[in-house]
Amino acid sequence: MPALPDSPVDPAVVDLLGLVAYGELLAFDRMAADARLAPDLPRRAVLSEMAAREIDCYRRLADRLTELGTPPEVAMAPYVEALQGYHDSTEPKDWLEALTKAYLGDAVADDFFRTVADHLAEPDRRLVLEVLHDSHYDEFARREIRDAIAADPKVANRLSMWARRLVGEGISQAGRLAAERPALAGLIMGGPGDRAGVPELFERLTTAHTARMAEVGLNN
Amino acid sequence: MPALPDSPVDPAVVDLLGLVAYGELLAFDRMAADARLAPDLPRRAVLSEMAAREIDCYRRLADRLTELGTPPEVAMAPYVEALQGYHDSTEPKDWLEALTKAYLGDAVADDFFRTVADHLAEPDRRLVLEVLHDSHYDEFARREIRDAIAADPKVANRLSMWARRLVGEGISQAGRLAAERPALAGLIMGGPGDRAGVPELFERLTTAHTARMAEVGLNN
Repeated sequence: MPALPDSPVDPAVVDLLGLVAYGELLAFDRMAADARLAPDLPRRAVLSEMAAREIDCYRRLADRLTELGTPPEVAMAPYVEALQGYHDSTEPKDWLEALTKAYLGDAVADDFFRTVADHLAEPDRRLVLEVLHDSHYDEFARREIRDAIAADPKVANRLSMWARRLVGEGISQAGRLAAERPALAGLIMGGPGDRAGVPELFERLTTAHTARMAEVGLNN
Repeated sequence: MPALPDSPVDPAVVDLLGLVAYGELLAFDRMAADARLAPDLPRRAVLSEMAAREIDCYRRLADRLTELGTPPEVAMAPYVEALQGYHDSTEPKDWLEALTKAYLGDAVADDFFRTVADHLAEPDRRLVLEVLHDSHYDEFARREIRDAIAADPKVANRLSMWARRLVGEGISQAGRLAAERPALAGLIMGGPGDRAGVPELFERLTTAHTARMAEVGLNN
């Protein structure tokens, strides 16, 4: 049985850890499935390894939730529908779509969690920052996308459209979540009820996303 | 570029490492897919974590193959058809079938590789022994199967039939592989052309498998 925490636990912290944990669990699931789209065994192995790193992060977050006295599945339950909805509506049809989704989608989520983590107390702040993405795999994804565009410039248009769809679906599910989970939305905004930071947050996320698109030759 | 090995590399060693590596890669793939059959999030997470450990083992074997001068995908290529054939013909329909397959199937493969590893020189002998299964997850699988049989004794019959099918399909693919890869078959038998050890090997594998079945309440 886990030790009870010393001070009362902020429900917004449990909300956030539950969200990130379920995000990792689902990212594992989708990347493992997407690995089957790989054109050869070495690429399939790389995506499988990316997936395995997500599950390691999941374990750290789940352990922390248990320590805080909340079973991980209870903390994750509120997000099952929204995150599943995002993935179901953005099922990659081929290897490049899968990679683009892993590269751009994870990066937006990471930027978002990095911003939110700044409002957390230690040790949760450090934990969330540490489970964020390993840049090693980003380099692999960037190279694959660039090479594919170099080989066939028409690919850039198709993947640019795909990236816009990913962002659209992501924003739609995020908005739904924010409405359903006021404590979490409060943490994201830096204080309950304070929505002043929302436009700035969206602008920051969008700017970084656009830069990542440009880096691999996609246009917004 | 990897350093060239000091002494000529035994092709049977590359054959074996390629087989084990592809086995791990495919086990990852199937367990990740099977995790979706889990009845709840905690169980889904456990199977996802089992899958992630397989990919860590894959990485160690792939690194060793590269060190020996053979790209992992070249060493794995001969096994793609047989192993895929095994998994395609034993697709679990539910959570208990998935767990039984992971528990019994992996254990037979581990027993087999443990026997073969004894014929290898170091460091490959130790490497193969180290990537063999973690007993931590076996305990989880055993408990799940026992609990399900306790709750509904009819489950024992269904899973016993399923286990017999797994063994039948496994033996059929193994026989096909042995015929196609004489160097590997030689290593397995302890020397090229020497088939005297085959009945003993099969008997040993069968005895251990029967004991594992009995342990969870299944009958042979």
